[in-house]
Amino acid sequence: MADKAQIQEAIKTQGEVVRKLKSEKASKDQIDEEVAKLLQLKAQIGGDDVKHQFVLKTAKGTRDYNPKQMAIREKVFSTIVGCFKRHGAETIDTPVFELKETLTGKYGEDSKLIYDLKDQGGELLSLRYDLTVPFARYLAMSKITNIKRYHIAKVYRRDNPAMTRGRYREFYQCDFDIAGQYDAMIPDAECLKIVHEILSGLDIGDFRIKVNDRRILDGMFAVCGVPDDKFRTICSTVDKLDKMPWEDVRKEMVNEKGLSEEAADQIGEYVSLQGGMDLAERLLQDQKMSRSKQACAGLSDIKLLFSYLQLFQVTDKVVFDLSLARGLDYYTGIIYEAALTQAGVAPVSTEAQNGAEESVSVGSVAGGGRYDGLVGMFDPKGRKVPCVGVSIGIERIFSIMEQKAEASAEKVRTTEVQVMVVSAQKNLLEERLQLVTELWNAGIKAELMYKKNPKLLSQLQHCEESGIPLVAILGEQELKDGVVKLRVVSSREEVDISRAALVEEIRRRTSEA
Amino acid sequence: MADKAQIQEAIKTQGEVVRKLKSEKASKDQIDEEVAKLLQLKAQIGGDDVKHQFVLKTAKGTRDYNPKQMAIREKVFSTIVGCFKRHGAETIDTPVFELKETLTGKYGEDSKLIYDLKDQGGELLSLRYDLTVPFARYLAMSKITNIKRYHIAKVYRRDNPAMTRGRYREFYQCDFDIAGQYDAMIPDAECLKIVHEILSGLDIGDFRIKVNDRRILDGMFAVCGVPDDKFRTICSTVDKLDKMPWEDVRKEMVNEKGLSEEAADQIGEYVSLQGGMDLAERLLQDQKMSRSKQACAGLSDIKLLFSYLQLFQVTDKVVFDLSLARGLDYYTGIIYEAALTQAGVAPVSTEAQNGAEESVSVGSVAGGGRYDGLVGMFDPKGRKVPCVGVSIGIERIFSIMEQKAEASAEKVRTTEVQVMVVSAQKNLLEERLQLVTELWNAGIKAELMYKKNPKLLSQLQHCEESGIPLVAILGEQELKDGVVKLRVVSSREEVDISRAALVEEIRRRTSEA
Repeated sequence: MADKAQIQEAIKTQGEVVRKLKSEKASKDQIDEEVAKLLQLKAQIGGDDVKHQFVLKTAKGTRDYNPKQMAIREKVFSTIVGCFKRHGAETIDTPVFELKETLTGKYGEDSKLIYDLKDQGGELLSLRYDLTVPFARYLAMSKITNIKRYHIAKVYRRDNPAMTRGRYREFYQCDFDIAGQYDAMIPDAECLKIVHEILSGLDIGDFRIKVNDRRILDGMFAVCGVPDDKFRTICSTVDKLDKMPWEDVRKEMVNEKGLSEEAADQIGEYVSLQGGMDLAERLLQDQKMSRSKQACAGLSDIKLLFSYLQLFQVTDKVVFDLSLARGLDYYTGIIYEAALTQAGVAPVSTEAQNGAEESVSVGSVAGGGRYDGLVGMFDPKGRKVPCVGVSIGIERIFSIMEQKAEASAEKVRTTEVQVMVVSAQKNLLEERLQLVTELWNAGIKAELMYKKNPKLLSQLQHCEESGIPLVAILGEQELKDGVVKLRVVSSREEVDISRAALVEEIRRRTSEA
Repeated sequence: MADKAQIQEAIKTQGEVVRKLKSEKASKDQIDEEVAKLLQLKAQIGGDDVKHQFVLKTAKGTRDYNPKQMAIREKVFSTIVGCFKRHGAETIDTPVFELKETLTGKYGEDSKLIYDLKDQGGELLSLRYDLTVPFARYLAMSKITNIKRYHIAKVYRRDNPAMTRGRYREFYQCDFDIAGQYDAMIPDAECLKIVHEILSGLDIGDFRIKVNDRRILDGMFAVCGVPDDKFRTICSTVDKLDKMPWEDVRKEMVNEKGLSEEAADQIGEYVSLQGGMDLAERLLQDQKMSRSKQACAGLSDIKLLFSYLQLFQVTDKVVFDLSLARGLDYYTGIIYEAALTQAGVAPVSTEAQNGAEESVSVGSVAGGGRYDGLVGMFDPKGRKVPCVGVSIGIERIFSIMEQKAEASAEKVRTTEVQVMVVSAQKNLLEERLQLVTELWNAGIKAELMYKKNPKLLSQLQHCEESGIPLVAILGEQELKDGVVKLRVVSSREEVDISRAALVEEIRRRTSEA
């Protein structure tokens, strides 16, 4: 341990760091982090003045969910899970950490964002980065060759958090995937149908789903003269088109990635194209594009996909867009991404342009694609299981729903209590406990105040605040008459109900709502 | 990096370790771990023969949940959450990791079981060890002085897993807590009522709830002549009484902890006592015990508790037991623990006696108590928020439910699909897609095979296997007649339904079940 003088020196220096940040109006996160270091130093010296001076916060980039946020979260989950179940999906769960080597080599550049666990003896572990790689590991390990499953769980990325825009280091993913050897584009189309159903069902504004195919991108790169070993890196640059103008993308290709100007310009022409089945048809006739077998296979599948999307009645929101690239390495076929189109709820911020983040536009609320090679990477014999899936960007949706709830006059209820058992007089705790027991045992959601002699007003106030619709009032007279006074909170109407009929009456009145 | 010869030597040695373990029939976990090391060594040498030779497993002490296990898990959660909601609880969520210092000094000896994250720059983080400490941190941080909340989430302990008995390194906790300054024993009694409701509702056999009070234990130690500084350690020894006989406990107190024989014998007399309100009454009159103010306060509260438990109609399962101690340091008042009493489902194994594990008997399925000081440890001004809570030992319950499901003839359904859209003839994919779209859009849970021309038999087989009750069959004739042939899987009965009436008919038939 360093000696006291050294620590005091360090405290002085760190104090200046904090003051400087504050004067520069640095971000709260940044200041909190430096304050934490300062307090840790102070704690090393000890003394009464710093006894309670530890940092009271959650880890950087994470948050608690309070009851109101949880109520919104559960509502969103229920819509999404409802859709997954309507499409016949099962669910699985995997551990929050995996062997480090399970995640190695799956995420390209983003691997640096993986949280590792400390080596405490035993295995080297990492927190999961997404749900797709654990899913592939699960399939290979359990020797499952076909399954339709959803998985809702938290994943972890040591990213630069932008929490006000709904971006965290700990966040939920909601994944739906179909694994198995099937006829082309049928499961792929169902994934898009699911995105359409969920985004329509959540009522968060209009949206658009872009689709493309990795084979079309690769074919396009080939016919435009991109060298084979530059496909992935040029693909990453194309992926930035939803955040920066073509001129900047072109500059990056030519200046940073060393692509020829001719190749860049040819790519530029293709990636400006958007359309539907007709565009796929046209490109199949395109002199240059049709030279690539890969591109033709992708284009034919796009045509087939659109024919199924028509039958699914979702073509109104889907567009074939050659600029869509998606960041992750493991996609092998169709890729897609859904974004909200209303500027109000989905601002396309320019500050989000750092290389560390997954290349998903800010308004993006769902994305996915086909990854036919991933399971094979885990299988000891390399056996492939074709997969296609979609991930719903749930945190962004939570943020929007929270904003909507804030703006709305309607209160978000955080409990489901149907009735509060109260008394107006003193010394009736036992009678209240007996009544609430009757209600609980009958399956009624009920509560009472944990006081011997609570004030009537404070009991009624609690009902108002929590949105409890009914109050069961007990007094000497009611007990004598064998009744309970049932009060409707909203109308203040009161009516005596015989004790024997109370449960039925509460059920009747609360099932109406 | 070590040179090739060194690694080959290490591979040879490690190979012998694995062979030895296998010949000794060591546990699968142990073998897997050593095999993992072997494969890692082999991977260092490289070469084609080890290309795919990484370890395909989950981290030690963790498991995947397959769809069947998930179906059981969701059923158990729904019973438990139903009970929590019936009692008016809200829910919150906290991050899976906390600042390391948040967990420091809360778990006594068990702190060594905490998983730390690797220092990757920034804050020092640890995975949560339980949900209680994060809850206390949340209350202090959000300045909440009263709340009734439940929280269901995974926690992490680097314990020796005993997975066959439902003990893992990653496992669920189901916590219900009441925070706030209330009149004595009312929230405490409700916690016991909740344990009673949940264990009765899950139908996993008979159970018993032991209660005691930390103040009674401390008072008892004082009057028996235990020195103040030995209270906690003697308490830990008493806690082992559900796993070892009194003679061994006594030996530990005297030989290992240095307690006098007289003191140990006096403790021995008290901790053999079990009873109800009458026992509390008797002890209040006990010459020695009544000398301790603390003990008297605890005993009076036990009496009050039992009077409330009578009103809640749960005294049949509750016993006041002076040997109950509970491991954790933070309890300050009432403590309780529920255990299953049927030997068949809850074997009290003797192999579980290692010091590392939390002192909870093997049949234990719920536990908790009052902790009035924990929130104050987080509040900068030390403001206290009294809390009482209960944690349901859900993993043990999962294990029992899984065993029951295995033993039962009834199949566990893993999806909720109501109808499968099939065709008997070729080239009807489009028509199937159209019909399934109609059903999805009407909110019916439906699926179809992702093949252009699936065989009728394999489609029907899928329904049998997945427990799908209805089949909607399309053929040329049905299309011509504007009907769908609806088949009941169980009875094989078939009936033509007009297309317009199909949704209603499916709803009618599946709501009956």
